[in-house]
Amino acid sequence: MAEAKPILAITMGDPTGIGPETMVSALNDERVYQVCEPLVVGRPRVMQRAVDLLKLPMEVRCIEKTEEALGASRRVLCCLPTGSEDADDLIPAQIDARGGQAAYDCLVKATRLVQENAAAGIVTAPLHKVALHEAGHRWPGHTELLAELCGVDQFAMMLYLPPGGKNRGGPAGLGVIHVTLHMALREVFEHLTVEAVCEKIELAQQSFSRIRAALRLPREPKIGVAALNPHGGEGGLFGDEEERIIAPAVRWAQRQGWHVEGPYPTDTLMYRAANGEFDAVVAMYHDQGHIALKLLDMFEAVNITLGLPIVRTSVAHGTAFDLAWTGRAKSGGMVQAILTAARLVRRV
Amino acid sequence: MAEAKPILAITMGDPTGIGPETMVSALNDERVYQVCEPLVVGRPRVMQRAVDLLKLPMEVRCIEKTEEALGASRRVLCCLPTGSEDADDLIPAQIDARGGQAAYDCLVKATRLVQENAAAGIVTAPLHKVALHEAGHRWPGHTELLAELCGVDQFAMMLYLPPGGKNRGGPAGLGVIHVTLHMALREVFEHLTVEAVCEKIELAQQSFSRIRAALRLPREPKIGVAALNPHGGEGGLFGDEEERIIAPAVRWAQRQGWHVEGPYPTDTLMYRAANGEFDAVVAMYHDQGHIALKLLDMFEAVNITLGLPIVRTSVAHGTAFDLAWTGRAKSGGMVQAILTAARLVRRV
Repeated sequence: MAEAKPILAITMGDPTGIGPETMVSALNDERVYQVCEPLVVGRPRVMQRAVDLLKLPMEVRCIEKTEEALGASRRVLCCLPTGSEDADDLIPAQIDARGGQAAYDCLVKATRLVQENAAAGIVTAPLHKVALHEAGHRWPGHTELLAELCGVDQFAMMLYLPPGGKNRGGPAGLGVIHVTLHMALREVFEHLTVEAVCEKIELAQQSFSRIRAALRLPREPKIGVAALNPHGGEGGLFGDEEERIIAPAVRWAQRQGWHVEGPYPTDTLMYRAANGEFDAVVAMYHDQGHIALKLLDMFEAVNITLGLPIVRTSVAHGTAFDLAWTGRAKSGGMVQAILTAARLVRRV
Repeated sequence: MAEAKPILAITMGDPTGIGPETMVSALNDERVYQVCEPLVVGRPRVMQRAVDLLKLPMEVRCIEKTEEALGASRRVLCCLPTGSEDADDLIPAQIDARGGQAAYDCLVKATRLVQENAAAGIVTAPLHKVALHEAGHRWPGHTELLAELCGVDQFAMMLYLPPGGKNRGGPAGLGVIHVTLHMALREVFEHLTVEAVCEKIELAQQSFSRIRAALRLPREPKIGVAALNPHGGEGGLFGDEEERIIAPAVRWAQRQGWHVEGPYPTDTLMYRAANGEFDAVVAMYHDQGHIALKLLDMFEAVNITLGLPIVRTSVAHGTAFDLAWTGRAKSGGMVQAILTAARLVRRV
């Protein structure tokens, strides 16, 4: 008998963005059903509108319990109704507090499902942070909200390119872990500490040990740590964070016996990592990592939250209002997010 | 009769780095002689050591006047002796004030040659900024030193990928112009003003108008302006520089009738530009531009100083001590820097 496939809860995200259409499109991909039983946590009416938009021969079936998702297929999208009907018919590509509230409700619900063992992991569609704030939820993003819901304070966002393409790292793919994330660049400096860098290196080490194990790769991960300043600080001429903060963290990691190097100037480090020299890069701020990974493959990159007791992946793009409800959004990132979540879940 | 080819002065850079060997290797490329008459401004002894390292059948010929460079070929490297013999036999890959002094002397000499119409443009090999400082020259880099030598205060560094490859922009290639450059990330904020952003947009507009004309492309450049903060500031949640500083500069540029857009989140902007949507991106700080362009093509990227009364190009990489005097450094960037300088010079 075949091994039971894990149930994955896919949150609708903000219904004004490209989330619903990319989900429907991804759930029309046969690869998804080979590795998991997907269910949508969201508004059935929104999903039906997305199915109609893409003109797919897909039934939207409301379910009450996650086990019913075992009936999902390319022809049957199983949806656990969540959130208020206020979000059913919002105007596309317009910031709306009701969209932010719906995204919030879906994420909270999906998290509970995993905590109650009713689902094995979460895949999330994008939310719009301003809409989330307008709905009264002051989280900078999914990642921080999930950490709170799970009661953890050591966590990080990793952007991940699964292996398989040119410039996509080595046999375990390429990950970038962010020490700081959703904040103004001006605020990065006060959040950059030796402890914070050590913590993210440790999360990188743990996650790639798992990913390598899941891919049956034996050797330990190789991790490169980025500098903060141009030219890696140019020997102290362009800032001292490398010497004061990053280098001590790297030395600590090396004392743990891990293969960790740096700090290296980020522009060359990213090039080396893309060419397979490192499994993971620890980046100091959001754009450092995001510029690189989105340039390498914007539409296949996966966002993984590290440090949670549950598996959560996401697409790497946002609500993309320029494409929302046009039917032109690419769904490759959503497919990869689902496949990656299934891989991480099944390893446990 | 064929059009006379321009004389280009190529500076040796820091002799402890990869400059000399990449120059010798580039001067062994036939394409160079099709577009210019190259001469080296530097130490003949250092060039001879590089020729010996690469085992090339090339004579190093000392010249006194730049016109003698008309005799240069793959078999004859013409060198205008410059700087002190103290720099002739430095230990490779070690920071040395004598190397910094030599790089300085060569740059000053080459600049004078162009100012005196004895050469048409400059191509520079990398210097090491700490060595430059140890030699008593407090410039953060080539770019700022050249601006001073030329008496200009409006200038910018552009990284440029010549057209011709996948993900290298449109038919005019892809350029990234930096509003701030060689400084600690922490210092960027005080240097970011509406005026500074306007000035760099204008330099981007001018330079790509020229590049497009040289390539016989008719239409005006398209310029994308990067945000400073993640998600472009996410509507003010992650910083206000977009609204206070960058957006007003973009509006000013649009009033000039130029095709300028932004500020856009940098991670997606770079992707769009690489795929040909923009000729140039105006980046707010060093790594924003460098991460992207080095990832796209580290070894073919060219550094162009905008705003100077003279043409100056360079490789985009540094002294690369890990490769210095091993003979393994790639010379594609040096070749592209020479070809690009020749193109910019001949258009005038």
